[in-house]
Amino acid sequence: MTARVDGRTPDAIRPVTMQTGYLEWAEGSVLFEMGKTRVLAAASWEAKVPRFLQGSGSGWVTAEYALLPRSTSVRTDRESVKGKLSGRTQEIQRLIGRSLRGVTKLDRMGENSILIDCDILQADGGTRTASITAGYIALGLAERNLTERGVFKKEILPESVAAISAGIVGGERLLDLCYEEDAKAEVDLNVVTTSDGRLVEVQGTAEGEPFSREDLDGLLALAEKGIAELTEIQRRALAG
Amino acid sequence: MTARVDGRTPDAIRPVTMQTGYLEWAEGSVLFEMGKTRVLAAASWEAKVPRFLQGSGSGWVTAEYALLPRSTSVRTDRESVKGKLSGRTQEIQRLIGRSLRGVTKLDRMGENSILIDCDILQADGGTRTASITAGYIALGLAERNLTERGVFKKEILPESVAAISAGIVGGERLLDLCYEEDAKAEVDLNVVTTSDGRLVEVQGTAEGEPFSREDLDGLLALAEKGIAELTEIQRRALAG
Amino acid sequence: MTARVDGRTPDAIRPVTMQTGYLEWAEGSVLFEMGKTRVLAAASWEAKVPRFLQGSGSGWVTAEYALLPRSTSVRTDRESVKGKLSGRTQEIQRLIGRSLRGVTKLDRMGENSILIDCDILQADGGTRTASITAGYIALGLAERNLTERGVFKKEILPESVAAISAGIVGGERLLDLCYEEDAKAEVDLNVVTTSDGRLVEVQGTAEGEPFSREDLDGLLALAEKGIAELTEIQRRALAG
Amino acid sequence: MTARVDGRTPDAIRPVTMQTGYLEWAEGSVLFEMGKTRVLAAASWEAKVPRFLQGSGSGWVTAEYALLPRSTSVRTDRESVKGKLSGRTQEIQRLIGRSLRGVTKLDRMGENSILIDCDILQADGGTRTASITAGYIALGLAERNLTERGVFKKEILPESVAAISAGIVGGERLLDLCYEEDAKAEVDLNVVTTSDGRLVEVQGTAEGEPFSREDLDGLLALAEKGIAELTEIQRRALAG
Amino acid sequence: MTARVDGRTPDAIRPVTMQTGYLEWAEGSVLFEMGKTRVLAAASWEAKVPRFLQGSGSGWVTAEYALLPRSTSVRTDRESVKGKLSGRTQEIQRLIGRSLRGVTKLDRMGENSILIDCDILQADGGTRTASITAGYIALGLAERNLTERGVFKKEILPESVAAISAGIVGGERLLDLCYEEDAKAEVDLNVVTTSDGRLVEVQGTAEGEPFSREDLDGLLALAEKGIAELTEIQRRALAG
Amino acid sequence: MTARVDGRTPDAIRPVTMQTGYLEWAEGSVLFEMGKTRVLAAASWEAKVPRFLQGSGSGWVTAEYALLPRSTSVRTDRESVKGKLSGRTQEIQRLIGRSLRGVTKLDRMGENSILIDCDILQADGGTRTASITAGYIALGLAERNLTERGVFKKEILPESVAAISAGIVGGERLLDLCYEEDAKAEVDLNVVTTSDGRLVEVQGTAEGEPFSREDLDGLLALAEKGIAELTEIQRRALAG
Repeated sequence: MTARVDGRTPDAIRPVTMQTGYLEWAEGSVLFEMGKTRVLAAASWEAKVPRFLQGSGSGWVTAEYALLPRSTSVRTDRESVKGKLSGRTQEIQRLIGRSLRGVTKLDRMGENSILIDCDILQADGGTRTASITAGYIALGLAERNLTERGVFKKEILPESVAAISAGIVGGERLLDLCYEEDAKAEVDLNVVTTSDGRLVEVQGTAEGEPFSREDLDGLLALAEKGIAELTEIQRRALAG
Repeated sequence: MTARVDGRTPDAIRPVTMQTGYLEWAEGSVLFEMGKTRVLAAASWEAKVPRFLQGSGSGWVTAEYALLPRSTSVRTDRESVKGKLSGRTQEIQRLIGRSLRGVTKLDRMGENSILIDCDILQADGGTRTASITAGYIALGLAERNLTERGVFKKEILPESVAAISAGIVGGERLLDLCYEEDAKAEVDLNVVTTSDGRLVEVQGTAEGEPFSREDLDGLLALAEKGIAELTEIQRRALAG
Repeated sequence: MTARVDGRTPDAIRPVTMQTGYLEWAEGSVLFEMGKTRVLAAASWEAKVPRFLQGSGSGWVTAEYALLPRSTSVRTDRESVKGKLSGRTQEIQRLIGRSLRGVTKLDRMGENSILIDCDILQADGGTRTASITAGYIALGLAERNLTERGVFKKEILPESVAAISAGIVGGERLLDLCYEEDAKAEVDLNVVTTSDGRLVEVQGTAEGEPFSREDLDGLLALAEKGIAELTEIQRRALAG
Repeated sequence: MTARVDGRTPDAIRPVTMQTGYLEWAEGSVLFEMGKTRVLAAASWEAKVPRFLQGSGSGWVTAEYALLPRSTSVRTDRESVKGKLSGRTQEIQRLIGRSLRGVTKLDRMGENSILIDCDILQADGGTRTASITAGYIALGLAERNLTERGVFKKEILPESVAAISAGIVGGERLLDLCYEEDAKAEVDLNVVTTSDGRLVEVQGTAEGEPFSREDLDGLLALAEKGIAELTEIQRRALAG
Repeated sequence: MTARVDGRTPDAIRPVTMQTGYLEWAEGSVLFEMGKTRVLAAASWEAKVPRFLQGSGSGWVTAEYALLPRSTSVRTDRESVKGKLSGRTQEIQRLIGRSLRGVTKLDRMGENSILIDCDILQADGGTRTASITAGYIALGLAERNLTERGVFKKEILPESVAAISAGIVGGERLLDLCYEEDAKAEVDLNVVTTSDGRLVEVQGTAEGEPFSREDLDGLLALAEKGIAELTEIQRRALAG
Repeated sequence: MTARVDGRTPDAIRPVTMQTGYLEWAEGSVLFEMGKTRVLAAASWEAKVPRFLQGSGSGWVTAEYALLPRSTSVRTDRESVKGKLSGRTQEIQRLIGRSLRGVTKLDRMGENSILIDCDILQADGGTRTASITAGYIALGLAERNLTERGVFKKEILPESVAAISAGIVGGERLLDLCYEEDAKAEVDLNVVTTSDGRLVEVQGTAEGEPFSREDLDGLLALAEKGIAELTEIQRRALAG
């Protein structure tokens, strides 16, 4: 077993720090750091829903995701300048939205929407999973704010949700890949799980050679461990 | 156990028929039908590669996917008219491309590209997995054509690849969902597997309630059975 | 007189075959083949009209046209990927729409619209004229369907409409040009005519040298013969 | 026979006035007025050709067309603000380009391009035909300028080209429709003809009821008369 | 002191000529020439206001600006073809709109809008300032027209507004730069002033070296002189 | 004299704090706060220049500017989602670029470019001026970094540049407006000045009533005071 680039053991997640309430005007916000990956998640409330839900009495949760241009080691062009969202961006924001909706009781929200903006100030791998984990915290803070203001009358988040990556690098199964590991991974798995251990999303991809069912099971076990730790971190942040 | 809408057993795939060589000018093509889902897959060869591979000696395989407007029960607007590809379309064509590259020896192709167009003439669920399965047949036909013309000197497709969906509908695990089943599924899993049984891609999504690890294992087993059947169908089509 | 590339006489149209009702969900559809040119025409009904007709009691018929990427001998890029419709595409779909409206009693339709999608699966010249001829069949099938469902109370298609090309190639006047002929034609004429012999549209273009009035008259006579044959084919298809 | 809105006889064109050399920097330009329709045509030379002609030794002529926003009685939105050219604009600029190329000896131009901008300062019907007629004058002036500067060594415009509309309004055949007539025309014909009487383009469209072959012949005769007059006007302008 | 390229003294504006009522259908229009710079300004009235003013009882004035392609010595591509407005165009049309609103009593207009189109037929420097000066004349003509038609009940333009440039070229302060001067200016100042001598907008920019406060004051004095002359020209044009 | 919303005197700037080197990979970066306005400025170096400078031996400095969606009190839609930059954004990024180039010796840079990204994490008025002031710090840090790496051989920033707003609110002249003051200002002035007191840019705008020359002079004096303070803050930050 070779040491990881930052000295972690194969089953260790990176250190997590955060600053909740980072933004003056957002209903909920957190500046969330996991290793060098830094996400600013902000929840915005609107007292209306998309057309397909109008008249349903139900609410909606959605997400947008973007890299700041110099979050990356080589500058990434702005999608506003290119005039369209890349497929990668759209795929990620659909994933974040689905994941957050997976633990939200939409039918208890009334016709209210919450949009979670996940802006990556600095990217070092795992930006989509960190966005889900941080996005849940922003959502949880907004829920508390809106409950206090009387917008929500019932509990809408009975469970929490968190996400993490795992992968195979140089034949070894590793938890929570940083960018350098991710770039050379043979297999990449993203897992989104609720606080009661159920799956919301599983996405495993062979970057080169296909992988065995045994590898899939090994990576799922690693992810389970990591998500348990993140779930506890989220619980403490929202209890604070 | 309730009967399925088309009378299939839970672990049965829909009937597959196809017409290979459907297009006069494509290097490989197939009009592939799986139940009422109908995909026209066409392989186009170009003697050049994307910029990031120039000078590498390696080839490339990519895919594009589109719904014809009246493939669907309610007409779908053309993305050419809307002026941009939806996130769903981009996500699907990235998946098809990754899946086909997962079994292609790119480094044996020389600096050649093959683009697989998957156009859905009629959609009844499972269009992305049918596109992968049909896309592989078009790719296999193009490989044969280009090998005969001397473009390819070595075998580039030692394994085949196929894909199928499975899901949980009304609490029951079902293989190869048609549209009516897919629309009410609680869990939707797409699996892409090679002919030697290894995984290229696993994507499982809870549409409503999160799912257990046991459900994931049950759905993976169903998909394994379906893909074995599709792999045999592909083998016969390319042997013909 | 030199033989044509496919052995036809100068005044012969290409063989026509078709499969009506090709699509499960469209109000009317036909997979129409004229030589190697293959059009999938589908009619979609909507119980509303464009803004400029709202409150008028009148209906509307319009058309969209697209080439599948590998319909052509060299692959054509998707307009959805380029993000806009070419001038050629827009010009063709305006022509198809005008031609179909030329025989439709819009004021008998009530505030209903029919959109005819003409997707070219394979292109070998004459795709715009084949789209008009096939589009009329899809429209006629939709009329019957909507009359049976009680949407239409009166006959809206008292005449039929068909279209054909004629051109001058190597100094000789030819009917129904295939792609190889079209590419070297000096003059290209598209004619759209009703079943009672009146003109809806005449478009003659010199590709190189201008042409004489006598040539125009000769080409119009050829087109008249071809359209009479197509009109009879349409009549039988809709009678079936 | 009813009087026309501006008192003309059915076979009369509107008065033509023009100011050649209107623009300081263009290689050729004319502010051309035909009745109230006012076109500013400007020729711009570039010492290069589009990609498909590079290395051919041949030149190119193309055109762009636009309405100024307040050329029309109700203001027309700018296409720059809408972000794309309408189908109508593209169809018209393709027609102008084809018409001008129809009389230009491209193979005598060397690898030079001339772009004719036709900007409509005021629109009162017939803007596309006036653009062709005015565009030819700008092209002729540019030819003279470029010949004097030694760019062109041979005559590139042995014939001239002009265009006019004719139509059926209230059952009567009229030459050179103004906007008020055009808006209620049953049939609209645009004809583009060279100075030696040959046809470059014929476009006849039924706006409502289809039209007979006899009507087509009658309108072509009217157009022939009008174009003979415009050809003489062009000749005098370029002789000046 | 070196002579200016067109022989003017440092504090002289270029000769101004104009043709009011140039457009048949606009509520107000002027073809305005200042030296070789030629602007066609047209006012269009709409009996409605933007969303943010609906229900306010107040009106709105806005502007659009465009260069005709061959207004410039080297042809400028159309923004309609590029599919978007440049930053420069948007900045200029925002400036024109703000400047005209600076002298308009919006609250006396009722819920009416006036859009001023400024199309540059020929550009020789100072197109944005000439657009403001000409735009005011078109606005003034439209005011008179709409007052006569009873749309406006009160005076909405108690003051007039005009604009001019001044700059430092080769160390010397010059009024009303032509293109050749502007291209080599070290400092460029645009000033927009009302007829009673108050400032609506001041924009001073160092193109190379920063400038002193003394230079700013000197340029403001030059501009004051030029605007007084333009104000008198506007007054006579609207009195006519 | 009424107290300001945050208790400042009329000529006081808001408190400034900053964190230099905030981003791991940028050549220079600063998280800069001025009151509640929070800008993340990042400098990115490229060893190439835009086309118009290629072969000149000279460098280039440019800037991009964006609001994060929830920087504002009501969420602002992403320009990447709208598919184009607003006029306001383009106007601001042109201003930032011009201001930074005003103090940069481009001809000493070699053919290198520096792009300054100014992303507004939180907006409370003065975002464009804070972007210039912070952008200069990021540029200064990048200059030091690139000088140490040997990219720059000569001093390229002999002077510094800073910017501030001043305005008239309720008839009173105030320095450094926060959002609440800016929203009701009658006059808004932005001034960009070098460390040796020369002007790079002056932009004064009447939001409602035009303003007198005396007001302009008074606001310029206020700005001079504020910029002197910011210049000293910049000096200390870069000395650190």
